[in-house]
Amino acid sequence: MSRNLILKGNICHTPEKDRLEIREDAYVVCGEGLCRGIFDTIPDKYLGMEIVDCAGKLIIPGLVDLHTHAPQFAYRGTGMDEELMGWLERYAFPEESRYADTGYAARAYGIVTEKLKRGATTRVVMFATIHPEATLILMDCMEKSGVVSYIGKVNMDRNASPELTEENAARSAEDTRRFIRECASRGYRRTKPIITPRFVPCCTDELMEALGRIRKEYDLPVQSHLSENPEEIEFVRELAPEAAFYGDAYDRFGLFGKDGRTVMAHCVYSPAEEVQRMLDNGVWIAHCPGSNMNIASGIAPVRHYLERGLRIGLGTDVAGGDSESMFRAVTDAIRASKMYWRYIDHNAKPLTFPEAFWLASKGGGSFFGKVGSFEEGYAFDAVVLDDSIEPSARELPLRDRLERAFYQRLDKQGIIMKFADAEQIL
Amino acid sequence: MSRNLILKGNICHTPEKDRLEIREDAYVVCGEGLCRGIFDTIPDKYLGMEIVDCAGKLIIPGLVDLHTHAPQFAYRGTGMDEELMGWLERYAFPEESRYADTGYAARAYGIVTEKLKRGATTRVVMFATIHPEATLILMDCMEKSGVVSYIGKVNMDRNASPELTEENAARSAEDTRRFIRECASRGYRRTKPIITPRFVPCCTDELMEALGRIRKEYDLPVQSHLSENPEEIEFVRELAPEAAFYGDAYDRFGLFGKDGRTVMAHCVYSPAEEVQRMLDNGVWIAHCPGSNMNIASGIAPVRHYLERGLRIGLGTDVAGGDSESMFRAVTDAIRASKMYWRYIDHNAKPLTFPEAFWLASKGGGSFFGKVGSFEEGYAFDAVVLDDSIEPSARELPLRDRLERAFYQRLDKQGIIMKFADAEQIL
Repeated sequence: MSRNLILKGNICHTPEKDRLEIREDAYVVCGEGLCRGIFDTIPDKYLGMEIVDCAGKLIIPGLVDLHTHAPQFAYRGTGMDEELMGWLERYAFPEESRYADTGYAARAYGIVTEKLKRGATTRVVMFATIHPEATLILMDCMEKSGVVSYIGKVNMDRNASPELTEENAARSAEDTRRFIRECASRGYRRTKPIITPRFVPCCTDELMEALGRIRKEYDLPVQSHLSENPEEIEFVRELAPEAAFYGDAYDRFGLFGKDGRTVMAHCVYSPAEEVQRMLDNGVWIAHCPGSNMNIASGIAPVRHYLERGLRIGLGTDVAGGDSESMFRAVTDAIRASKMYWRYIDHNAKPLTFPEAFWLASKGGGSFFGKVGSFEEGYAFDAVVLDDSIEPSARELPLRDRLERAFYQRLDKQGIIMKFADAEQIL
Repeated sequence: MSRNLILKGNICHTPEKDRLEIREDAYVVCGEGLCRGIFDTIPDKYLGMEIVDCAGKLIIPGLVDLHTHAPQFAYRGTGMDEELMGWLERYAFPEESRYADTGYAARAYGIVTEKLKRGATTRVVMFATIHPEATLILMDCMEKSGVVSYIGKVNMDRNASPELTEENAARSAEDTRRFIRECASRGYRRTKPIITPRFVPCCTDELMEALGRIRKEYDLPVQSHLSENPEEIEFVRELAPEAAFYGDAYDRFGLFGKDGRTVMAHCVYSPAEEVQRMLDNGVWIAHCPGSNMNIASGIAPVRHYLERGLRIGLGTDVAGGDSESMFRAVTDAIRASKMYWRYIDHNAKPLTFPEAFWLASKGGGSFFGKVGSFEEGYAFDAVVLDDSIEPSARELPLRDRLERAFYQRLDKQGIIMKFADAEQIL
């Protein structure tokens, strides 16, 4: 418990999407569980608070992973020679079937949770599988880890392997209700359920309708996939001819923002009407550059989304993404945007490091409320990084040290302290 | 010294460019300093040799980095918001100027060498700087490390910052001759000089001519940069209007293969005549996907080069590349090829993992002779990897373990033993 605390060190965050603020040898104050701002000297009213001296270290906001699949960690970094539909069939679905076995789930989710706990992620929005028991095991693990999360029991009643196809829409909906009630009864403080239709190809209209009702009834957020891959989009067009566009196939059932928070992963090929609808409905985009490159989906037009003022953050999307590292997601987003600029739209300026850092912190953080910045009133999510583990021939400016830490993936070994929602978890 | 030795473990290599051979629980024999092949049981004639039991571990050939810049390690992973020409001016040149100071060089090159020694690289082709003394310091460090290398004192007599512009072509040539003679006198066993005109923009015709003479006189290989970036190519067109294409500006001076080995980094935008000349002259291409994406240069048509039968390997190109890891270079090459397939040429099938692994081993290895494979008669370069440092929920097939090790960058912590040219260096 660290409801009142001052961290001293080199504090780096992005209060605006194109402004990196670096405060050398400064103090960030957590008072009564919330961030109270950054100060060069400690204000009188905070004198007497515990000071944790991280002098010389880098202190950044905890990062927010808007999209990943917990059951796919087990095979991440394998099967990367496949494209989306074949990859689902030959890798994702067989692995997810294993989570009918709660013993396997406990073992596998223990590993996932430990990884997330040790990394820079303090908030995550995750898919589990169709299995309520296994999903609750994941939630138990996550609650214990201290990382704040939304976790979805997945719904799918068509176009999956037989073991992963729920009996019918009614049964899928009933399992979902039971799962939600069980979550409530377990009294989690930082682990919440989220409505999770896998994606249109795997959900009948009947199931979508039921999920729309459940969402409303329990006032829950929604996560799903959108416009990731040309083949997939074509398949959706066949399956849902009455939808004006892919996203409309969610919106028709109240699963696309407006009355509740929704995050949609990918949006690589969203047409103009879909983008407009996301804007109108306040849908968040989880940009997953690593996954989009790995399974050869393409590159999302992030610059365009930023200019239009869409809500957007980053997702690691394990195991389309090969790494759970949000540091990697930041550098992947920059690289992908450079290839987009070079080959697709020379007017779409590549993302800068501050912009990608913002996406990973305050951008995605907004899905959780006031999260991802050290401004006053924000949740206190903080990561302390010892970047001296990577030797340097000379003293680098702080700006370069921060950028280097991301490119060198120093989140893997360099995190020495971590706070999520004002609790110290490392 | 390990001139005779048998390693036991899970042996993985690519004897052909699209064939990954995995031999579970097998033996690879090093006899009198050369690889004698892979065996399921030890042949009678090798009985009695020392056996190193690496049961359960992955054993791969040492990897070959065909292009990197030792002096740029110090700022790798910074300045990534720049494009080539601005990046040279604001990051590369100022850093390289520091190597006039031999104290700085000793410190910085000590770090570089240690990194290379601990990674999966057993052979490397490197740029140093224009400074002969600092370059010799690097060579001393590399010789001690056990990693086999070609290292170039860089030549540049125009279009650089004043501190990095050599007085004139004659002086540059004279320094190069002195450097080459000093290398010979130091009696290095695994560290060799290579002729290194930085690139056409930085070398006058007079200098190129002198370097062509020196190359011939000492029978040395050549390294340089080629067709990396549209702006750069345009600049070369202005500077060398008499050259038929960029590569021709090297070929005119005997610095483009044929009579001697030459490796050219990048070749992102090589026109058909240049490709044909590389083929005719037997020039090696150092494909540097990470760097090409980071400084937004573009993506080289690797599939096309493979189909044409060009000599090609991978380069990390630090600090355009942010990492010295050849594991990373492999996965970067795959990703880049997927974006190339998706956006540039849908006929150019993405690289598979075996193909990229081949590029990093036998592909680039050919620049050093019979290197990069465990076939009989190849140099004995081997890396033993303990991939259990990354926990797994279930036992993965060996093929998946190998792929996962690359994507998870297990070269960073997982290498437990390493041999280069039959010497144990870790």
